[in-house]
Amino acid sequence: MGISRYKVDGSKKVKLDSFPTDSKKDKVNKEEILKKTEKNLQEMGLLQERLYAEGKEGLLIVLQAIDAAGKDSTIKHVMSGVNPQGVDVVSFKAPTSEELSHDFLWRIVKALPARGKIGLFNRSHYEDVLVVRVHEMNKNYKMASRVVEMDSKEFFKKRYRHIKNFEEYLYDNSYRVVKIFLNVSKDEQKKRFLERIDNPEKNWKFESGDLKERTLWDEYHQVFEDMVNKTSSEEAPWYVIPADQKWYTRYLVSEVIVNALRDINPQFPEMPEEEKQLLAQCKEQLMQE
Amino acid sequence: MGISRYKVDGSKKVKLDSFPTDSKKDKVNKEEILKKTEKNLQEMGLLQERLYAEGKEGLLIVLQAIDAAGKDSTIKHVMSGVNPQGVDVVSFKAPTSEELSHDFLWRIVKALPARGKIGLFNRSHYEDVLVVRVHEMNKNYKMASRVVEMDSKEFFKKRYRHIKNFEEYLYDNSYRVVKIFLNVSKDEQKKRFLERIDNPEKNWKFESGDLKERTLWDEYHQVFEDMVNKTSSEEAPWYVIPADQKWYTRYLVSEVIVNALRDINPQFPEMPEEEKQLLAQCKEQLMQE
Repeated sequence: MGISRYKVDGSKKVKLDSFPTDSKKDKVNKEEILKKTEKNLQEMGLLQERLYAEGKEGLLIVLQAIDAAGKDSTIKHVMSGVNPQGVDVVSFKAPTSEELSHDFLWRIVKALPARGKIGLFNRSHYEDVLVVRVHEMNKNYKMASRVVEMDSKEFFKKRYRHIKNFEEYLYDNSYRVVKIFLNVSKDEQKKRFLERIDNPEKNWKFESGDLKERTLWDEYHQVFEDMVNKTSSEEAPWYVIPADQKWYTRYLVSEVIVNALRDINPQFPEMPEEEKQLLAQCKEQLMQE
Repeated sequence: MGISRYKVDGSKKVKLDSFPTDSKKDKVNKEEILKKTEKNLQEMGLLQERLYAEGKEGLLIVLQAIDAAGKDSTIKHVMSGVNPQGVDVVSFKAPTSEELSHDFLWRIVKALPARGKIGLFNRSHYEDVLVVRVHEMNKNYKMASRVVEMDSKEFFKKRYRHIKNFEEYLYDNSYRVVKIFLNVSKDEQKKRFLERIDNPEKNWKFESGDLKERTLWDEYHQVFEDMVNKTSSEEAPWYVIPADQKWYTRYLVSEVIVNALRDINPQFPEMPEEEKQLLAQCKEQLMQE
């Protein structure tokens, strides 16, 4: 039931198909999992407070998934226990024209959390090797011919390398990066799409274009697999999390985050001796009022 | 008199001492140089307009130097002919507390020009391997122990690599990067400091701390030499420009920039045939008024 089985650290190539999309293989008890999730969320709150107080490391959590895998609801449930002052959740939509006229990491870097904070990216720079690759958007970039005329294979090879370099750079600048891919099955996506169509309160989450992207399931499957293989490292691993059962997804995501915070092991800063004395003086002054 | 003799592209190690700080060796005629500078500034204006109209590549110019080498006056004179709408000049001072709580490239990336623009950085990310290295500021960073306890040699080796990766990434994202180091002699710095002290209108440019930094001349000389050797590449070369005579410095800097723009070779976008027809219709309509 540990999360290590879902971790990809770049040491060997993986197949997405070898990862489960539900909890069956883990033979877990749902009641127990719900309790453990609750415990994790409490611990996350405590660790986050220390992370903020210490201010020495930043934690970046990247969340990627195919449509309807449950990104939004995972964020809502897993991050609900954490003081919002210490967390920046950033959703990346289709880039604006200003963003498109800059390098692709420009909007990502601007949104990075300060050290002491948790940044959670709902989609991220990985869109630039996912939807961009499936639709070969690079061919239509308003860029120099050396870029747009480049063979797509070569183009994305460079892009994977730039992303790896970027995340290694973040690690060396006192950040931790964990990347979560919500692995939903094609059947479950169909069920959730139908629910979005049938339930008026969920209609806003659906658009007809979603079905067109669903016809590209195999292409997306391939670029997700490539993404995981080409950009995983010990310092910035991917976790391929089963996403067909929300209660299990939430538990595993909470495990990933709590483990990252435990690794950082943040501590409340200890007061220097003279400041401690000052505190004692202040206390005395207050008591004599 | 070409600028290639001042270019460092990383193909071989260089000694800063082997570069002149004045024009003597080039045996130039000052009047001719002034005329050529004027011509360059005009060409720069024309090329910049095309760069802006085309919007396919961005040009980043990094300017670094020891105190009183003439960064400000070079910018003032060389960039004066260019439409300010197409140029972002950004001066980097000591980082703010918000900047210090992020990765060191955070403020740099935020300030990058959009494609179609020229960005001129007065100081830059290179401060993080110059003043930071001379004063070993990395030892006092509020960061994880894996960063602050790292051997300084190892720390800056990584930093040089991250900077090279970053500039290569920019090139692959349709940017050009040229880096200019204004190479002033110790004697000329003394003269300029004295002028700043004697001339009340220049007093504001001097502070007593400048003399303390001057005592570290040899240390700075070494880190500038390392910077040039460790971060030069064909895609992002350094130019070590003599800076004892402002008229010559300005000429060479204008040469570097005009050459970079010529390399980009920007063109006014050509109208598609149907838009041309639309223009013709608009003309007719106006004429009939």
